[in-house]
Amino acid sequence: FLSHPDELGIVAVGFSGGQCKPGVDAAPSALIASGLLTQIRDELGYKLHGDDTVHLYTDLVPAADPPFRNMKNPRAVSSVTERIAEQTYAHAKEGRLVLTLGGDHSIAIGTVGGTAKAIRERLGREMAVIWVDAHADINTPETSGSGNIHGMPVSFLTGLAREEKEEFFGWMKDENRISVKKLVYIGLRDVDVEEKRILREHGIKAFSMFDIDRHGIGRVMEMALGHIGTDTPIHLSFDVDALDPMWAPSTGTPVRGGLTLREGDYICECVHETGSLIAVDLVEVNPSLAPANDTGAHETVRAGCSLVRCALGESLL
Amino acid sequence: FLSHPDELGIVAVGFSGGQCKPGVDAAPSALIASGLLTQIRDELGYKLHGDDTVHLYTDLVPAADPPFRNMKNPRAVSSVTERIAEQTYAHAKEGRLVLTLGGDHSIAIGTVGGTAKAIRERLGREMAVIWVDAHADINTPETSGSGNIHGMPVSFLTGLAREEKEEFFGWMKDENRISVKKLVYIGLRDVDVEEKRILREHGIKAFSMFDIDRHGIGRVMEMALGHIGTDTPIHLSFDVDALDPMWAPSTGTPVRGGLTLREGDYICECVHETGSLIAVDLVEVNPSLAPANDTGAHETVRAGCSLVRCALGESLL
Amino acid sequence: FLSHPDELGIVAVGFSGGQCKPGVDAAPSALIASGLLTQIRDELGYKLHGDDTVHLYTDLVPAADPPFRNMKNPRAVSSVTERIAEQTYAHAKEGRLVLTLGGDHSIAIGTVGGTAKAIRERLGREMAVIWVDAHADINTPETSGSGNIHGMPVSFLTGLAREEKEEFFGWMKDENRISVKKLVYIGLRDVDVEEKRILREHGIKAFSMFDIDRHGIGRVMEMALGHIGTDTPIHLSFDVDALDPMWAPSTGTPVRGGLTLREGDYICECVHETGSLIAVDLVEVNPSLAPANDTGAHETVRAGCSLVRCALGESLL
Ligand SMILES: [Mn+2]
Ligand SMILES: [Mn+2]
Ligand SMILES: [Mn+2]
Ligand SMILES: [Mn+2]
Ligand SMILES: [Mn+2]
Ligand SMILES: [Mn+2]
Repeated sequence: FLSHPDELGIVAVGFSGGQCKPGVDAAPSALIASGLLTQIRDELGYKLHGDDTVHLYTDLVPAADPPFRNMKNPRAVSSVTERIAEQTYAHAKEGRLVLTLGGDHSIAIGTVGGTAKAIRERLGREMAVIWVDAHADINTPETSGSGNIHGMPVSFLTGLAREEKEEFFGWMKDENRISVKKLVYIGLRDVDVEEKRILREHGIKAFSMFDIDRHGIGRVMEMALGHIGTDTPIHLSFDVDALDPMWAPSTGTPVRGGLTLREGDYICECVHETGSLIAVDLVEVNPSLAPANDTGAHETVRAGCSLVRCALGESLL
Repeated sequence: FLSHPDELGIVAVGFSGGQCKPGVDAAPSALIASGLLTQIRDELGYKLHGDDTVHLYTDLVPAADPPFRNMKNPRAVSSVTERIAEQTYAHAKEGRLVLTLGGDHSIAIGTVGGTAKAIRERLGREMAVIWVDAHADINTPETSGSGNIHGMPVSFLTGLAREEKEEFFGWMKDENRISVKKLVYIGLRDVDVEEKRILREHGIKAFSMFDIDRHGIGRVMEMALGHIGTDTPIHLSFDVDALDPMWAPSTGTPVRGGLTLREGDYICECVHETGSLIAVDLVEVNPSLAPANDTGAHETVRAGCSLVRCALGESLL
Repeated sequence: FLSHPDELGIVAVGFSGGQCKPGVDAAPSALIASGLLTQIRDELGYKLHGDDTVHLYTDLVPAADPPFRNMKNPRAVSSVTERIAEQTYAHAKEGRLVLTLGGDHSIAIGTVGGTAKAIRERLGREMAVIWVDAHADINTPETSGSGNIHGMPVSFLTGLAREEKEEFFGWMKDENRISVKKLVYIGLRDVDVEEKRILREHGIKAFSMFDIDRHGIGRVMEMALGHIGTDTPIHLSFDVDALDPMWAPSTGTPVRGGLTLREGDYICECVHETGSLIAVDLVEVNPSLAPANDTGAHETVRAGCSLVRCALGESLL
C-alpha cells in the first residue's frame, strides 16, 4: 500500500500532556541517542524523511488549560494531536511508511488521525489499527476515572467520544476516524469495567494475555491478522507497557503479566511480514522512571528500539 | 455444584507444623493485609463468611510431639488438620465456595478432607482435586526422607498412607478421602524417586513442566480438565512454589523452571471457567523468606493474591 | 547406536583460544566442582570413562601464533582441536556416549570431528549435528569480522571452509566432516549478514527464536527431529548462550531474547528421548563473566549442569 516502501517519514513527539508523569517527552531523544535512526538507515536501508529534531509543541500549549468534560490538559492535547495529524498525514500522503516516536499514548489521536485520512485519500480504503497495550485506552471523557487523555485515544479515534468544540478535538472529522470493526487489541490485561462493557457492546476484537497463554502468540497473530484481512493497510500503535515490566520497567503505568520481549518482537515481525504496514507508533517509554534497577531505563529504550526495528523489517534469519 | 455460588467461606490457617521453616504461618495475615479479602468482596462481589481472624490452633499443639512413623509433629498436624476439616466441611455443607489461605501444604489434609465429605453428603459425588505444585507431596511416612508432613498430604488423602491411631490421622475416614483417579497434578518438577514409582503404579495423571513446554499451558489445561470431566466438582490446591522463583521467591522449597505468573493465573482462570470449582487452597507463601531481593516477599504475596482472584473469577476482559 | 549406552566418555576441555575473553577455560572445573559428574554417576547411573582432569593443552599452544587468513590463534586452535578429535574418537569408537565440557565453541571442530569419524567407522553412517546457539558459528575465515575461530567451527566441519596446510586445520579429512543436510540449528538470533547468505544458499535447516515463538518449542523439536529422521546418530552441541542472559548471564557473547532454561532443558530431554544421541558438548560457560549480579556465574553453571543432565536422561517424572 506504499508507493515508496523504502522511505520512512519520522515524527519525533516530545509530548507528555496526555498523562501526569513527566519524562515520557524525553523518550524520542533517548531512542534516537541510542542509535535507532542510524540503524534504521544503515542496517535496514530506509531513506529517512523528517529531521532528527524532537518536536516539543511548546507553542501549542496554552498558559491555562483547565479540565473540560473531565479531561486534563484538553486544549494542549487537542492542539498537539491536530499538529501531529498534519505531520503523519504529510508523510503518508506521499506514500511513505510513517514512524512516530512518542510521547504518551494520547498522541495516537494525531498519528492515526493523520494516516487514516491520507490512506482514504490515497487508496480509497479504510485502514486497520493494531493496538498493542496492557490497556484498552478506550475510555470516554465521562467513563475515565483519571481524566488523563492517554486513556481515551481509541474512543476519540473510533468516534465513541466526540466533541464539536474546536479547541477540544473539534478538528477531528470522519476522515480521521477508524471503524471499531477494523480495530484489534493485543496484550490487554488492565481494562476498566466500563471499558470492558464498551469492548463487548461494540464487538471489538481483543486478544488479552489470557488468549496469548491459551493459544500462544503464533496462533494469536494468525487470528489477529485474519480478522483484518490481507487487503487492508495496517497502522501499528505499540504502547511499550504491553511488554512485561521485566523487559520494560520504565513506563508510566506498568502492569505485571505482560508480553515477553520475544513476544513483542514477534508481533512486530508478523505485522511487517504482512506487507500491509503503513505506520508505526512507539509510545510510553519514560526513561525517567526506572524502578529498583538503574539499568531499567536503558533496557526499556533498548526494548523499544528492538520493537521498532522488527516492525521495520529486521529479522533473525 | 454450589447452592450459593456468590458466598465464600474463608478459612485462614496460620500453621507451619508440616515443615521446619518458620514464617509460613504469617502468610494469611500478609495476604489479607495486602487487601485480598476486600478485593474479593468489593470487586468480585462475593459475600464473605468466616471472620478475618487467622487461626493459629495453639490449643491443638501438644507440648511434646516426638516423631511417629518418621513423621515430624504428627500429633499437631493431625489435630490441626482435623479441625480444618471441620471448618471447610461447615462451609462446603452450606453450599458455599471455600477459600483456605495457608499455611504449609500439610493443611490440605484438612481442607480436602472436609470438602470431600461435604460434597459426598450434599451431592452424592466424588470430587476431583487439581494439585498445582512443583512437588507431588505424595510420600508416605515411610518413603519420606525428611519426615515433613507437607510432603505427604496426598498419600493420606488418597489412602495410600493410613494410620488407625486416633492421634495420628486416625480421624480420617473414607468419606474424607479422594480417588487417585480423580487427582491431577500440574507443574511438577521435583519429584522423589519413590514418588515417581507411586505415580506410575497408580496411573496418576500428572502434567510436569516438560508437558507444559511441549504442549503449552492452553492444551495442558484442556487435557487436565478433560481427564476430570464436566460432571465433577473440583477442589483446587495451589502451592505457590509451582510458580517459578522469579515470581514467587518467598516459599520454603523453591524449585527453578516453574510456571510463569501468567501460566499460574491461566490455570486458575481455566478452573474457574469450568463452573465446577468448590474450593481453593493457597499454600506455602512464606513472607519471611525473601532471598536476595527485598521485594521478594511483596511480590510473592501479590502473586498469591492474583492466583486467588483468578480462581474466584477475575478475568482480563 | 551405542554399544555401551550406560558408559560415558568424558572430555574436559579447559581451552579459550577460539575467542578473546579469558575465563571460559575455567568452566569444566566449575561444572565438575558443582557436582555434575557425581550426579551423572550416582543419579543417572552412568559408568564414567576418562578421569576428572581438565585438559589445558598447554603443550600444544605455540609461543607465537600470528593470524592466518584472518584467524586468531590458528595454530593453537588447530592443534588443540586435533587432539580433542582424538579424545572423542577414542570414546566414540568404543561405543560410548561422549560428553565434552568446554571451553569455547571452537572446540567443536574437535568434538564433532572425532565422533563423525568414529560413527562412520563403527556404523557406516553419517551422523547429524544439532547446534543449539544464539549464533550460527558458520563464518569462514574470510567472512568473519572478528577472526575469532569460535565463530567458524561449523564452516570447517561442513567443509565450507577448508585449508590444506597441516598446522591450520589441515588435519581435517572428509571422515571428520558432516553434511550441511544433517545440520539443524535451534535458538539463532544473532546471525551475521554473510552467515544468513550461507544458510540460505546451502538450504541449512535453522529454527530461530522467531520460529520458537511462532510454533512453540514442542513443535519445533518435532520438526527438528523430523528433519534428521530416526535412523541417524545425533551429536548435540549446546552453546550456553542459546539460553537467555536471564538464565545464563556468564558467557562471552550474550544475546537477549533467548531460550528460557525450561526450553533449553526441553530440547535436551527431547534429544535424549530419541535414543539416537551419541555425543553432547556444553560450551561457552564463562564463570568469570558475571554481569550485574554476583550470583550470575553460579546460575550459569547450574543451568549448564541442568542441560547436561537432561541430555543424559534426567527427567521430571
Ligand atoms: Mn498502556
Ligand atoms: Mn496505551
Ligand atoms: Mn505442596
Ligand atoms: Mn511444593
Ligand atoms: Mn553462541
Ligand atoms: Mn557457539
